[in-house]
Amino acid sequence: MNIVDIINKKRKKISLTKEEIEYVITNYVSKNITDYQMSALLMAITINGMSDEETIYLTDAMLNSGDKIDLSSISGIKLDKHSTGGVGDKTTLILAPIVAATDLNMAKMSGRGLGFTGGTIDKLEAIPGLKTSMSLNEFKKQVNDIHVAIASGSKNLVPADKKMYALRDVTATVESIPLIASSIMSKKLASGADILVIDVKVGNGALMKTEEDATKLSNLMLKIGKNYNKKVVCILTNMFEPLGEAIGNSLEVEESINVLKGKGPKDITKLVIYLAIQMVKLGKNISLDEATKEVRNVLVTGKALNKFYELIKYQQGNINDMVISNKVVSIKANKSGFITKINTEGIGELSRKLGAGRYEKDDVIDPSVGIKILKKIGDFVISDEELVKVYLGEKDININEILDCFEIDEHYHKPSPLIIGTIE
Amino acid sequence: MNIVDIINKKRKKISLTKEEIEYVITNYVSKNITDYQMSALLMAITINGMSDEETIYLTDAMLNSGDKIDLSSISGIKLDKHSTGGVGDKTTLILAPIVAATDLNMAKMSGRGLGFTGGTIDKLEAIPGLKTSMSLNEFKKQVNDIHVAIASGSKNLVPADKKMYALRDVTATVESIPLIASSIMSKKLASGADILVIDVKVGNGALMKTEEDATKLSNLMLKIGKNYNKKVVCILTNMFEPLGEAIGNSLEVEESINVLKGKGPKDITKLVIYLAIQMVKLGKNISLDEATKEVRNVLVTGKALNKFYELIKYQQGNINDMVISNKVVSIKANKSGFITKINTEGIGELSRKLGAGRYEKDDVIDPSVGIKILKKIGDFVISDEELVKVYLGEKDININEILDCFEIDEHYHKPSPLIIGTIE
Repeated sequence: MNIVDIINKKRKKISLTKEEIEYVITNYVSKNITDYQMSALLMAITINGMSDEETIYLTDAMLNSGDKIDLSSISGIKLDKHSTGGVGDKTTLILAPIVAATDLNMAKMSGRGLGFTGGTIDKLEAIPGLKTSMSLNEFKKQVNDIHVAIASGSKNLVPADKKMYALRDVTATVESIPLIASSIMSKKLASGADILVIDVKVGNGALMKTEEDATKLSNLMLKIGKNYNKKVVCILTNMFEPLGEAIGNSLEVEESINVLKGKGPKDITKLVIYLAIQMVKLGKNISLDEATKEVRNVLVTGKALNKFYELIKYQQGNINDMVISNKVVSIKANKSGFITKINTEGIGELSRKLGAGRYEKDDVIDPSVGIKILKKIGDFVISDEELVKVYLGEKDININEILDCFEIDEHYHKPSPLIIGTIE
Repeated sequence: MNIVDIINKKRKKISLTKEEIEYVITNYVSKNITDYQMSALLMAITINGMSDEETIYLTDAMLNSGDKIDLSSISGIKLDKHSTGGVGDKTTLILAPIVAATDLNMAKMSGRGLGFTGGTIDKLEAIPGLKTSMSLNEFKKQVNDIHVAIASGSKNLVPADKKMYALRDVTATVESIPLIASSIMSKKLASGADILVIDVKVGNGALMKTEEDATKLSNLMLKIGKNYNKKVVCILTNMFEPLGEAIGNSLEVEESINVLKGKGPKDITKLVIYLAIQMVKLGKNISLDEATKEVRNVLVTGKALNKFYELIKYQQGNINDMVISNKVVSIKANKSGFITKINTEGIGELSRKLGAGRYEKDDVIDPSVGIKILKKIGDFVISDEELVKVYLGEKDININEILDCFEIDEHYHKPSPLIIGTIE
């Protein structure tokens, strides 16, 4: 077998065999295949596609490239949740304690973000003292003790994906449905949970720009899950505007607490409740109505909020020491009208500029900075009314760049629904 | 401008601008764009193609990446010839002295081969003592003195092509018509000749597998040439079997001399005369009949043969010291019948195995080894009749592998014509 012949096959749109795909992944991880050969192959895959069988072979080869976590010593069903990512997406921080408060196990391995805003781990680390790095035994003990743990992934979990993702990011090969599916599924399969709920974002702030592509991706991930006897459910949700109001790490933790208190923005609250109901329904194998009741119960009684504080305390975080910048600048609307469009990527990029996200792997995040979006799509805004609050750190941004992210029109456009549907 | 955005555009099949293409080439040569980014872009180009305008921009950017040779101090028209390459192709060694013997200038910068068999420079260097490395002034003086010089190209001639070609070779992005056209034309434009005749090979031993592709490539190269006011003529010729009998460096020099003496194999003789007539016609701006007369004259009178010896002597070669291996093995046909097919690539690969070509850039060629094909497509061969002579060096090859390259059938199939046509 020879890498040039394999690349050539995919260039000509011929399917690769299981053996060829295994050869590629094994030799790429062991550095016998170079980055430039891998990037040529990834581009050929991105343009010419892969069959479902090829994608399953690829996922399997990636999964076998490193360690697999064995969670069997945790009693009961283990649930995991994944989001394809978006601006202001703090869902995990809220969802995990809700689900754990119903006595289901949330065993969540999470990543740091390389992108506009931090990942779940970065958000949690906005809480001073909080530890996300722990041994597998500590992780399993914590889930057994309090039903929830959120830890940064083991270094050797799917090394093939780490190498491939870093390469895809700089070679314009991110937007490939088979590559996205195998990347997500290999990591999630390696993490060892029984049930997986995936929030597939659709829109201008998401990887999937259309509902059609999001549906394709979801069906593919379901098929891969089935191959391993894992239950996978995909929830398609819109990402045409940031989720909730807060973007930035400390701000998002604060908003998460507000949602758990019943005082959060409507959109993020609704999405979290929807996801929680799906997970409780699956995890306990009960009806939608029963699951809804359980979720409502843990929220109304404050059990979910207490579970959040329990989680923080277990992982040694001091929530009272969390810092949000007090250098706040108000940005006001420059005309009256309905907000018809928000450039979500643009807002994400600006929050990164402030220091809330990373450009390079080793950049240090400033958890105290961020942006709060006070008006969302469909809202009527009066000229000079406050539109956005910017929480500044050491870096400044241009007010006009933020205003340019908003389209204000005199006519009302009905916003797209937040939740598009469930694929299972 | 940003390389990831540029790759992404081509991935989506959107045309690149002149500025974007210049940005890519400049930054690739200066190492600001990595090999893995370039290979992703090259794969996107190979699959999604390039418009004629993009190909002209690419050729121009590559041409401007290094030195350009100024031949204006040579009096008269300067001609150059290029072949897209094939097994047993020693055309330049024979054509250059013929054309020079008619008092036209053949100013030929040539390359070493990375492939089955050596390039023109490797073939010339089979002649002990022969120098192909010379300064530009020495090169121009030689052309002024004897109308012909064959030199290895300057190190800084189209550095972009050198880097790109090495990368394409190991990333399955060789077979792209716009990339082939820009690679050939940037090098030829940098070499400074006025008239360029290109032998475009078609068939199982060539880059272009079909006449349709060869025609596309030819028209594209003509269009690029026109953009620089250079006269370009493409001759489409078949490469379904090795050209002539000899493959291997010393053997090919010996065969070249035989052709000049009127004792060479029919196919190579015919092709060289055809190419020479085209060049003399263009170079002297005379009719086909007049050009034919001139070419016949220099061959019959021995002027062309003398010009060959003059060239060798000027470049300090000692033709009498040339060594052809005397360890010769005869391979005999294992059945009677007509030869209907020869696996040209297979024969080339075997000659490389013998040591006549390179696997790696720094491999040392053994000029004394090679293969002589005694029966060609359309010939009737009797069982046990000699089919091939192998000239062995230090490395051995398997006789059955050679026999496997020949298909012998009891029915006669008319062979494809050697010369398909001229595009100008």
